Amino acid sequence: MIQASLIAIDWGTTNRRVFALGPDGAVLERFADGLGILSVPDFPAEIAALRARFGDAPMLLSGMIGSNRGWIEAPYVPCPAGFGALSRGLVRVEGTAIVPGVRDIEDVMRGEEVQLLGAVSAGLMPRQGSACLPGTHAKWARIERGAISGFRTVMTGEVFALLKQHSILSAQLQAPVRVGPAFVEGVQRALDEGELLADLFTIRARALLGGIEDPASYASGLLIGSDVAIGLSMIDEGPVALIGDPALTALYAAALEEADRDSIQIDGETAFLAGIHAIAARL
Amino acid sequence: MIQASLIAIDWGTTNRRVFALGPDGAVLERFADGLGILSVPDFPAEIAALRARFGDAPMLLSGMIGSNRGWIEAPYVPCPAGFGALSRGLVRVEGTAIVPGVRDIEDVMRGEEVQLLGAVSAGLMPRQGSACLPGTHAKWARIERGAISGFRTVMTGEVFALLKQHSILSAQLQAPVRVGPAFVEGVQRALDEGELLADLFTIRARALLGGIEDPASYASGLLIGSDVAIGLSMIDEGPVALIGDPALTALYAAALEEADRDSIQIDGETAFLAGIHAIAARL
Repeated sequence: MIQASLIAIDWGTTNRRVFALGPDGAVLERFADGLGILSVPDFPAEIAALRARFGDAPMLLSGMIGSNRGWIEAPYVPCPAGFGALSRGLVRVEGTAIVPGVRDIEDVMRGEEVQLLGAVSAGLMPRQGSACLPGTHAKWARIERGAISGFRTVMTGEVFALLKQHSILSAQLQAPVRVGPAFVEGVQRALDEGELLADLFTIRARALLGGIEDPASYASGLLIGSDVAIGLSMIDEGPVALIGDPALTALYAAALEEADRDSIQIDGETAFLAGIHAIAARL
Repeated sequence: MIQASLIAIDWGTTNRRVFALGPDGAVLERFADGLGILSVPDFPAEIAALRARFGDAPMLLSGMIGSNRGWIEAPYVPCPAGFGALSRGLVRVEGTAIVPGVRDIEDVMRGEEVQLLGAVSAGLMPRQGSACLPGTHAKWARIERGAISGFRTVMTGEVFALLKQHSILSAQLQAPVRVGPAFVEGVQRALDEGELLADLFTIRARALLGGIEDPASYASGLLIGSDVAIGLSMIDEGPVALIGDPALTALYAAALEEADRDSIQIDGETAFLAGIHAIAARL
């Protein structure tokens, strides 16, 4: 058994990431597995298994574990939401604390708030600025005075996955996506026209009429370009903090460059751990 | 056996519609089945089966049967394309004639051209005007001097089906779509904002935050509104001819009304048969 000082779990719908942290914040051990909330029949038993492995340190849980389909619901706190609001909204159960999600007028996030505020508290992005967390459901957020003041969800990753797995374009979208001429062409088209439902079909038509180079990257460019156009319409001027998986933030950085917008890329795990430490300091 | 004067088949990817027509153009018999091109191992045998049933009349085949995945490829004819171009592009094989598809600079149609030009030749829409054929891949077309001068495909129906069958919104989209307040709200939002990838997620968020009425109709409104915005950007002023399944053209008529645009609804089968007769007259 490792005696951790803090146990942090980013517990999502289909998988989870577990971190055992030492007294100085160093990661003693980390692992990810497929035990998302939909695969866990007995949360107390799961928690006990983690305690057997990492000891009885404070345990912070974020993500879908606090949703109405998770273990115990941690109700959404409203915008503007900073660490104070998250801490006051913690739901304590069996020696753990579940971090609440955040809601805007007609939007919700759960899990991203820890990364967002963690990036701010670690000084990786300013206390007044804009951020984007790419993913299945990408989040664009405004940060004011160190709190999340508003945000919007864009279904970019999910729609790309649907097209890749189930659509008439499926066979054309299996290659890895890379930043290159096809990606840039897709981004520019999306930024110029914003007619996604029609632009997507050109992938099929161009293949029938004589070929299209790198259709997967072109499709990704169309979707990320559409996403960026939406995001830029709701944030202020200045650089965008891109928080997440480096392969994905690199695509968004390239798309933002086409829109003449600077960005800074922040590793999602670094931001998550910074957020967890800030919440733990208030326990 | 029925002795038909003309046999017409709208032969698509997953199903086909067969019409046996009399000397005066009346439908002697019609049927639809699941024998789309992907389900037919032996086209000559299928044609022989139809001949045994309806005699040796001229047989016109349109739709995906003429694609590179069909029986014999009937190459796309370019815009502007009228009945003359379609007739010159007919591919004759084993006593049948396959109608070619039509291509624009970066778009293709196959099957819709018969309905479009049929609506014109039957006087159901003007020789100078605009049309929309809703469906899995909706087509918006400009008609000039009785020919298809340009068109654009919008993946509206396919994206709605993907969201309904496979997405996080799936459970919310199972109800029948109807023109009502939720549909109209979706259309207006799409026409005003055009931020489809974000607007779709509000369906999920609003459900979590206290409910949304008739989410299937709202989602359909978002998609059809986005489709209409794209279509209106490429057609001229004046009423839009909506050609297709009456349940679907009614939704588009309601969406066009929100955009202050008049429309006329034309039954797709009527338009198809008119087009087939016009092509048969040139055989």
